[in-house]
Amino acid sequence: MSLNNSILSEIFKDVSFSQKEINLIESNIEKLSLKKGSTLLKAEEIVNNQYYVYEGCLRTYFIDKSGKEHTLQFAINDWWISDYTAFFTTTKAIMNIETIQDATLYKISRKSMEDLFCKIPQLETFSRKKMERAFVSFQKRILASLTQSAKERYVSFIHTYPNIEKNIKNYHIASYLGITTESLSRIRKELTNN
Amino acid sequence: MSLNNSILSEIFKDVSFSQKEINLIESNIEKLSLKKGSTLLKAEEIVNNQYYVYEGCLRTYFIDKSGKEHTLQFAINDWWISDYTAFFTTTKAIMNIETIQDATLYKISRKSMEDLFCKIPQLETFSRKKMERAFVSFQKRILASLTQSAKERYVSFIHTYPNIEKNIKNYHIASYLGITTESLSRIRKELTNN
Repeated sequence: MSLNNSILSEIFKDVSFSQKEINLIESNIEKLSLKKGSTLLKAEEIVNNQYYVYEGCLRTYFIDKSGKEHTLQFAINDWWISDYTAFFTTTKAIMNIETIQDATLYKISRKSMEDLFCKIPQLETFSRKKMERAFVSFQKRILASLTQSAKERYVSFIHTYPNIEKNIKNYHIASYLGITTESLSRIRKELTNN
Repeated sequence: MSLNNSILSEIFKDVSFSQKEINLIESNIEKLSLKKGSTLLKAEEIVNNQYYVYEGCLRTYFIDKSGKEHTLQFAINDWWISDYTAFFTTTKAIMNIETIQDATLYKISRKSMEDLFCKIPQLETFSRKKMERAFVSFQKRILASLTQSAKERYVSFIHTYPNIEKNIKNYHIASYLGITTESLSRIRKELTNN
């Protein structure tokens, strides 16, 4: 597979690589094209990979004992996605990941990442900073779940994922917000009327 | 200040340092002893530091518009604490941090961390792995807030923070779980009776 430098600089922001480093990354990264409705990861599978979303939209969800789906996260262009609990701790996936639009992804394994970190220290810095941003967004989300009303969380959702709504089913959004689809409709109506 | 090697290896697990590196870290880290009830950080302050908890217990909380406190996190021995949203993004704190037991902390600034990362790459690896673990625990907590009952979240809390309960006020625990103190009492009674 051949990746040009501009795609690499889209994936690894603010990092510039030598030609040798580009070749090394290219040999560790794999492009995937998936149709809408594809399963990228199933609960109970071993998780070896994470994915950069070049285009499309994916959803990470958990199925509880009663069979109900809970959406943990959506991933759109420029996000990374995996079941990170399993990815970082070498345990089986508890989450499922599916494409909810046709998607182009770049896949990289944990082993490849660790190898690249040793050989290209800038990549480790990039990864640490990415984790810091993710940490911030998770912290904000926990705070929101403790302090905000469902309406406020819906407004945050729209800001976090602009233009995503038209491509996502209502019950996915509701399950991300931890509310019923009826509550979601009511909130939308209230916002439209204001 | 002089830090011995055993304290450094408690703080930076699995990393072994040369004497030169130990001296470098020592010159960037500061020991703090705080009495119970001290304020470590106030909302609106600029956040330049993070803290390793050597002993004691601290609480990170947010005060909403109505003046109500929401506990985001407790930190006990071997945890790191700061308002990470502000620490990582160079913005003002939105959180408050107080000691709820006498505490011994090691303070390190963001600038010192970044300098040390350049000079001691192992520390950057340590920090990235620490972020990965924090990421996992936040992901689990968001999932729990979406899928678990208050009783299940209380049981998780006890597992996450063993022996912490006797030192913490009930309304802190309730505000961490996002429930009322009355609900907390009811849950405890149910668990005792089972």
